[in-house]
This record gives sequence, structure tokens and C-alpha cells, in this order.
Amino acid sequence: MQFQPAVRTVAGELERVFSQLLRHDVKITAAGRTDAGVHATGQVVSWKTRTAFPFERFALAANALLPPDVSIRDVAVTNEDFSARFSAVERAYVYAIYNAPARSALLARHAFHVWLPIDVGAFERASSALVGEHDFRSFCGVLPESGRTVRSVRELTARTCGNLLRVEIRADGFLHRMVRTIVGTLLECGIGRRDPSAISGILDAKDRRAAGITAPPHGLYLAGVRYSDGFDSFSEPPITR
Amino acid sequence: MQFQPAVRTVAGELERVFSQLLRHDVKITAAGRTDAGVHATGQVVSWKTRTAFPFERFALAANALLPPDVSIRDVAVTNEDFSARFSAVERAYVYAIYNAPARSALLARHAFHVWLPIDVGAFERASSALVGEHDFRSFCGVLPESGRTVRSVRELTARTCGNLLRVEIRADGFLHRMVRTIVGTLLECGIGRRDPSAISGILDAKDRRAAGITAPPHGLYLAGVRYSDGFDSFSEPPITR
Repeated sequence: MQFQPAVRTVAGELERVFSQLLRHDVKITAAGRTDAGVHATGQVVSWKTRTAFPFERFALAANALLPPDVSIRDVAVTNEDFSARFSAVERAYVYAIYNAPARSALLARHAFHVWLPIDVGAFERASSALVGEHDFRSFCGVLPESGRTVRSVRELTARTCGNLLRVEIRADGFLHRMVRTIVGTLLECGIGRRDPSAISGILDAKDRRAAGITAPPHGLYLAGVRYSDGFDSFSEPPITR
Repeated sequence: MQFQPAVRTVAGELERVFSQLLRHDVKITAAGRTDAGVHATGQVVSWKTRTAFPFERFALAANALLPPDVSIRDVAVTNEDFSARFSAVERAYVYAIYNAPARSALLARHAFHVWLPIDVGAFERASSALVGEHDFRSFCGVLPESGRTVRSVRELTARTCGNLLRVEIRADGFLHRMVRTIVGTLLECGIGRRDPSAISGILDAKDRRAAGITAPPHGLYLAGVRYSDGFDSFSEPPITR
């Protein structure tokens, strides 16, 4: 998502097309700043303009100008003080794991292939220790500027559907690489490399080295963002539908 | 699928890797010769070798050497007279249509985006006229060498799942671009551009110009091949699961 000079990013593509349609420089604010390779079905961005535009047709016009791998679902006019990022009260991520001996060509860029059998019961027992308000410093890559690493995980569920294991995590906010580090650590419990009871000790350590691997970005989807007025952008990823 | 010099194809990649593992030139025979952009979840290929190899580990070894967008599900030793192509008694294709006003970035290469609303009832009424044994010359691109254009369509179903319309066609065999021309013509009925009753007249015309558009390749999946001994390679595409 994040704009980087000389690299094609979702933010850069959106700003280029929005600026072209509105005929002024547009700076967008995104609800989630996703790493390279991470997908988004429920990303929300906001920007300011004084330009009159028939906004009910803005999504179609922008989709016609955007590259095939970026598309807009809907556009709405909001209050002036709305920020896609700072007005959000909850974010939902879905992580897709393809658990089968042989990898899948069709899922190569859309799910993390794990060939070792996963014990979903152990995965779930481990995940229950993460629900609630905790200091997630052990599951954080780069520390936030605020230094605040306490987050409230409201939901953490695992569900199998054929060879796919779908993990959903909802929280008030997420730290850098928090979902991928949580999934990587839970997977280590699921394949028997760690005991599910180890999770509370990992939280207590407040040290990234206590947690497990960072699961790769291509299994991760920013699936939805919820706002205080009740609006929720949630959209299930195509392969876990 | 088909081998072409100087172009990367699935057949070329398989022959390169199989030759490397078995240490002799391998020529494969595929059940379906899919066009560029068409996917396959249930393709079957056969080849001959006298080389001893622990074939229970052949799929894993080959997947380690194949590019990420090609993978093998399983390998089995057969009778010497087995041909993936000529021993097949039925093939199943799935066609995925994404029916929504705005296109989807995540489905860009995996489903055909149709933004006009599709009347699934009209689509189904039109499709019923194609079930059974017919001369499908009107739905054929390049004529087969045999000149025989009679095929037996055993099943043709349409099912909606959210914004996806999943079409499945089973037949003893298919002509060049037959599924894509059938889907394109049925879509013209579904969006009201043709009457569903027009299908029998299109069959009678025995002229490609009587039928509708050829739906694009990226919505099409060779999903399964059935053999006389009952073996069926069917595997549902990830997005229509």
C-alpha cells in the first residue's frame, strides 16, 4: 500500500488515477498500510477534494484507469473530519493456509502452503491465549512511533474448509507484522514444534525473539475495517468464501 | 498446455522436468490441450519410461523443480496401453463468471468479469437445449482433423455463489473453444441480448457465425477427466469451492 518513489504501489496507483480524475494532487490516507505481497479485500482509503464529481460513477471511472491488479469496490462522500485510518475502530485480517502434501499452482500467490499436517485443535488452543487485551510487543516487527504495543484482540478463529485453513483476527489495531507473527507462531504449535501452552509465556517475554516465524505475506488479506458509525468494509477473500 | 518452441508452456515445463528426473527425453500426452490463459485443476498427462524411480515421491520431486505456476497433484503407474488423452471417457470444465458492477483485482486472472446483471434463469433455459448428443459445429473454432463435430454433453449446470456464477459442462469430448463459445452464447441469453429459445436454431445452423462471442480463456478451468476404470481427476477450482 505505502507510496514509495520508483516502486509501483497500490497507494501510488490510486493517487495517480484520483489526481487525474479530480485534476489536483490527491494524497490518500489508508486504513491499513499493508506490506508488499499482502492482499486487501476490505481496504478503505480517504482523501480530501473540493472538486465536483459525480461520485456515484467515481469507482467505475477509476477502475477503467487503474491496472488490473487494483480495483475499487465503492466510493462514498463522508464528513470532512473522517479519516480512513484514524476513524477506524476495528480491523479484520484473514490468513489463508493451504495444508496439503503437494503445493497448488493456482494458490501460489494467494495462500501459504504448509505441507506438514496441522493439528487444528492445537492451533486453536494456542490462539485462545491471545484473545483479549495484551501487550503484543513479542509479536511486533518495527515498534510504532508511540511505543504503545498494547492491543485488544476481539476475535481469533480458525476454520478448515477442505485443504484450506482460514484464520480470522479482529482487533482494535495491529502492530507491524503482528498478524503474520501470530500465524507463524500458532503454526509452530499446530505442527507440534511448540506446545500451545507456551503462548502466554511468549506474551510475557515482550521480546520478538520469544515468538515464532513471520508467516509470508501472500497468505494475508486485510478483509475489513469497521468505523464507529457501524460501517464495516468486510469482504471475504475469494478463495476462503 | 501445448508445447511450442521459444514459448513457456505447461507441457514444455513438464517435459523439461520429467526428462531431468528420468534422465531420458520424455514426451507427454495430455487429456486436454488447453489454450493460453486457461487454467487446469484436473489435467491428466501420461508418458512412457523404463527408468526405475520411487514414483510415490515423483510429484514432490517434480514440484520442487517446476515453476510456482505449475504443480502436480499425484502420480501413478498405469497399464502400458493407457493414454491420458485416448483412454478418457469424459471431461469436465468449470467456467467462472464474476458478475458485479465493479471488477475484482483479486479475480482479474481467475474469472470473467461481466458487469451487466445476468438473468440466471434465462442462462439455464438456454443451456438446457445443449444437453445431449448434438452436432456442435456452430460452437467450434478450428475443426478437428477427423471432421467429426458430434459430441455428447452429459451435464450443463449453472450455480450462483455470491457474485460468482459457476458453470460446469461435462461431455465425452470437446471441440476447439467449444466451452468458451457455449458460455459466451449463453451469456448473451443471460444479459437479454438473445432469446434462450434461439439455441436450437444455432445448433441447426452448423455455422460458427450463428453462435455468440467466445468467452475469454481466464475464466475457464479443465476441472476433471474420467476414465473407463472409474478414475476421475476432478478437482474444484479454488475460487468456486
